[in-house]
Amino acid sequence: MPLVNISLVKGKPREYVRAIADGVHQALHETFHVPADDLFQIIHQCETEDLRYDANYLGVQRSNDIVLVHIVAGRWRDTETKKALYKRMAELLAEKPGIRAQDVHIILSPNDRDDWSFGNGLASYVKD
Amino acid sequence: MPLVNISLVKGKPREYVRAIADGVHQALHETFHVPADDLFQIIHQCETEDLRYDANYLGVQRSNDIVLVHIVAGRWRDTETKKALYKRMAELLAEKPGIRAQDVHIILSPNDRDDWSFGNGLASYVKD
Amino acid sequence: MPLVNISLVKGKPREYVRAIADGVHQALHETFHVPADDLFQIIHQCETEDLRYDANYLGVQRSNDIVLVHIVAGRWRDTETKKALYKRMAELLAEKPGIRAQDVHIILSPNDRDDWSFGNGLASYVKD
Repeated sequence: MPLVNISLVKGKPREYVRAIADGVHQALHETFHVPADDLFQIIHQCETEDLRYDANYLGVQRSNDIVLVHIVAGRWRDTETKKALYKRMAELLAEKPGIRAQDVHIILSPNDRDDWSFGNGLASYVKD
Repeated sequence: MPLVNISLVKGKPREYVRAIADGVHQALHETFHVPADDLFQIIHQCETEDLRYDANYLGVQRSNDIVLVHIVAGRWRDTETKKALYKRMAELLAEKPGIRAQDVHIILSPNDRDDWSFGNGLASYVKD
Repeated sequence: MPLVNISLVKGKPREYVRAIADGVHQALHETFHVPADDLFQIIHQCETEDLRYDANYLGVQRSNDIVLVHIVAGRWRDTETKKALYKRMAELLAEKPGIRAQDVHIILSPNDRDDWSFGNGLASYVKD
């Protein structure tokens, strides 16, 4: 169910970008109970001047390798589950493609079960 | 009021993309009580590798013609209204430009009446 | 904390686009209590046919200089605070780069304190 928007500065090799996307999905699978085949991602590769960030907000040292992961997902996850997601996603992206944890940013936008149609004109998560 | 983000793989003729956008708006007009002139859409034509989807999640057979329609809209629609939107949007895009219902995906992000300013620095839907 | 998506039609000078982004952030700082260094923006410079809008909805005369500012931000701001944001953002963009108030559109998507990770794998706004 999540709809994932991943934004980063363009210029990275395709395998690097793919590793980010795979790590994001793996973290959702492991911590958010997202099925392995529930994969819907849009990747935005931005010009440098079109992705603006503060390099020091909250004392976190960010670089031009920053990744902004914006996830639309159901609102029923609790705070502990969200914390597990953040921790695991930072770990996985540090492993591959090797992004510093300071550069991994995650923003959740909650919605409800009846807010999703995954094809066939149906509300996929509503039981009739 | 809706803010509509439509994402698809680039390479389609302009008329094809326009027909998608028109069909999305028509479905909102018919089922979501969106005025005909309440049209605000951003179309994202992505590289193939930047729009990732599972081709079989929930048993729905998806193709590279997949369209992801992400709609920010007021939270006051009920489940029946949302189901009508999904059904009608799939029907209209099947008619024109001829997209299989399996490839039409719709995600709603709810917000409130005071979350919209349609110009002039005003909260457009708040009664003073 | 806000995640800001700014969409406009491409073709403007870099300084013009930068002035929009700066004005958007300044308005958030002045009215929404966003720290000066809490800056995270993605700018989408669209083809003309990929940013669709009605030129007269609600009687507001829009032009191809339209700017759509979509802000993901915490849900705890009240209506008066939101109205102040809309007013101030329109004022600032009118000053620089000189955008008509009719062309400034702002959409808020609310979320919660535990929906944000600004690096290091932590829920940045959750107190342990």
